Formats: sequence, structure tokens, C-alpha cells
Amino acid sequence: MIFFDCSTAPNPRRARMVLVEKGIQVETREISIAKGEQLLPEFKAINPQGMVPALRLDDGTLLTENLGIAAYLEAIAPEPPLLGRDAREKGLVMMWNAIVEQQGGLPIAEALRNAHPAFVNRAVPGPVDCPQIPELAERGRFRALAFLDLLEERLAEVPYLAGEQFSFADITAFVFVDFARVIKLRVPEAHGATRDWQARIAARPSAAV
Amino acid sequence: MIFFDCSTAPNPRRARMVLVEKGIQVETREISIAKGEQLLPEFKAINPQGMVPALRLDDGTLLTENLGIAAYLEAIAPEPPLLGRDAREKGLVMMWNAIVEQQGGLPIAEALRNAHPAFVNRAVPGPVDCPQIPELAERGRFRALAFLDLLEERLAEVPYLAGEQFSFADITAFVFVDFARVIKLRVPEAHGATRDWQARIAARPSAAV
Repeated sequence: MIFFDCSTAPNPRRARMVLVEKGIQVETREISIAKGEQLLPEFKAINPQGMVPALRLDDGTLLTENLGIAAYLEAIAPEPPLLGRDAREKGLVMMWNAIVEQQGGLPIAEALRNAHPAFVNRAVPGPVDCPQIPELAERGRFRALAFLDLLEERLAEVPYLAGEQFSFADITAFVFVDFARVIKLRVPEAHGATRDWQARIAARPSAAV
Repeated sequence: MIFFDCSTAPNPRRARMVLVEKGIQVETREISIAKGEQLLPEFKAINPQGMVPALRLDDGTLLTENLGIAAYLEAIAPEPPLLGRDAREKGLVMMWNAIVEQQGGLPIAEALRNAHPAFVNRAVPGPVDCPQIPELAERGRFRALAFLDLLEERLAEVPYLAGEQFSFADITAFVFVDFARVIKLRVPEAHGATRDWQARIAARPSAAV
């Protein structure tokens, strides 16, 4: 299989972390979003949506979207489990991953893409151009702050988002919280549980990729 | 377990359809969003996020978010499989579910919640109030139209979104496309593949709940 990556973007990083956690080595092609390579005809022939990450299987099937890639990798390489060990944990991993995507990742992306000059007319990823909405950037920032509070509240109760076990939900949250630096947002010093969780994940080999 | 439902909202309908497909009968409590019951202290004591659907397990664990509930139900009642039968299909189900949520469900919700008088100051679901952004309603409508084209393109190739087998991705798309009537958007007559797919899903007992 071939993995289409972009070393500077948060979503491909989530898939890279899954690959490292599972010890899977895969042929990788770098698609530079900074150079707009994801929208060139060569890459759109592979993924018409013009988005990374993407994983092309040996039979030609293209898997896009982080959960699509993670679910496939979890099925072919179950150890270590990243999507939950039993029914309850599987539910909690998917639940927290969704909360983090919707209440963390989306607002951070909205704050960046609707304000930064690099994203003029590119407020939404994908093949269709969309103008920026400055009010949405503001709202994104406001919601991202609320998300940091929610994260601290959860991590004050349990070591990892889904409970006792590191999971894909932690990967999603770790990557988005790290990426929030692009909108000049950092975990407040008072958020001790989040900072401790960040340090534990930063020490994993997968966080270095 | 107890299922917290709302008969008029699209997201609880997705979870209801999973329960029916799997033949699981569960004690259900109706939370009326029209009456604002999801934000009353009684329900926020159950789910502080003030959102439905939610599933309370017998050990007290609360599962929210459709994928959280679906992943749990798939694990306790594997038949019929709704999240894929093998690694490739598991990947495709999660991929298409994500595409439908982000490119279909989110834009439809943006178009509704940022324009309709019933959602003044409630542009985002959950416990925190957010003002409406009229430009985002417009953008949502534009993106929802593009989503209908993407859906037709996919369903012209395969009978169901993940391929040969009906899955949770179809439930998500069916419910959101049906719900798009609230922004006066319907599948164009020329979209024959989508209309045929809609008719096949509408004939399933789960579509009637």
C-alpha cells in the first residue's frame, strides 16, 4: 500500500501516529499543501477530493479520512488496540474522537482558515473554493477555548480520553491541541491534567513523526 | 441501558435506525429539543453537553455521539454488521461516514442553524450559546448542494456508499438527505442513482422509526 502524507498538516499526522503505534512501515509520498500539490491533476487523479491523508491499498481501493484509515489499520494490525479493547471502550474511543474532532479540530481549523492570508478563498479544505468568513474565525477561537476547558475536565478524571488506555482519541486530541499554536492558542499553565497528558504522549515514539 | 432520544432531530434518528437494524429493544426517554428539554438541569445531570442521542449503559457509562453508540452496539450485537465485514469494508464505512458528516451533515446544519429564527443564538448545538452567522448559512447551502452531486457520483458506481453492503454510512447519508428538507433542499430528479438508493433504504423497517 501507499500512504499519501503531508508533513506539515495535522490530519496526516494523526494517520502517521497510528502507523508508528502499530509498527507498520509503508511506502510514503509527500504531498506539499504549502505548494498546493494536493490540488494538482496528478494527485486529484489519485484522490479527486484533493485531501490528505489517503491510503491506497494494493487492490487499488483508496481510503481517505482519518477514521477510514484507522479502522482499516486496526483490522489488519489489531495490536496495540487503538480503537478500544471491549464494547464499552470501543464506544468511548469513538465518542471522544468525535467530540475532539467537532469541538476541537473543527473550531481550530475554522479560526485558522477563515482568517489567515494563506487561506483566502480556501476556507474549507477540498476541491471547491470557499471565501473566508471572519466572524467564523472568531467563533472558532471562542469554541476552541471552551474545548481546552472540556479536555482539562475530562483528563482530571482519567489518564486518557477513553479511560485507562491510550487510544486514537488521544492521538486526535494531542495533534489538534499541538496544532492550535497556529491560532496562538496553548494549553493554559493551570491545566495541569492536560499538561501531564501532553507530556506522556509527547514521550511516545509516535509523537516524534 | 437507557436510550435518550428526540423524535424530531436527525442525529438521534441515526442511532434509532442502528437499534432497529440490530433488533435491540431498549428503554427510551424522549427529550424534546423543541421544548428545550436537552438544556434543562434534569438532562444536563445525565449529559452535561446537553445533546442527544445518548445511551446510558447499565454500569452508568454515558455514550454520546453517533459513532460512540454505533461502535458499542456493533460490539455487543455484531449481526447484521453495520460497520463493515472485513478490513477494507470497515475502512470504507468509516471513510464514507466521515465524508457524509463533514460534507453533508455539517453544511446542512450550518444552513439551518445560522438562518432559522428558532436557532437565534443557538447556531451550534451543545451547552454554549453562539450567535448566528448568515454568511455561514449561505456557505452551508452551497456545500450541501455539492454534497448531493458527490452522493450521486458515488451511488452511480455502487449500490451502497461502502460498496455492496448496506452500512452505517448509508444510515447517516439517508437521514441527513431526508433532513435537508428543512433547508428546502431535495435530491434532484436527475439524480437517479440517489433516488433509487433512497427508495431501497426507505423500504427498510428501520427507516420508519
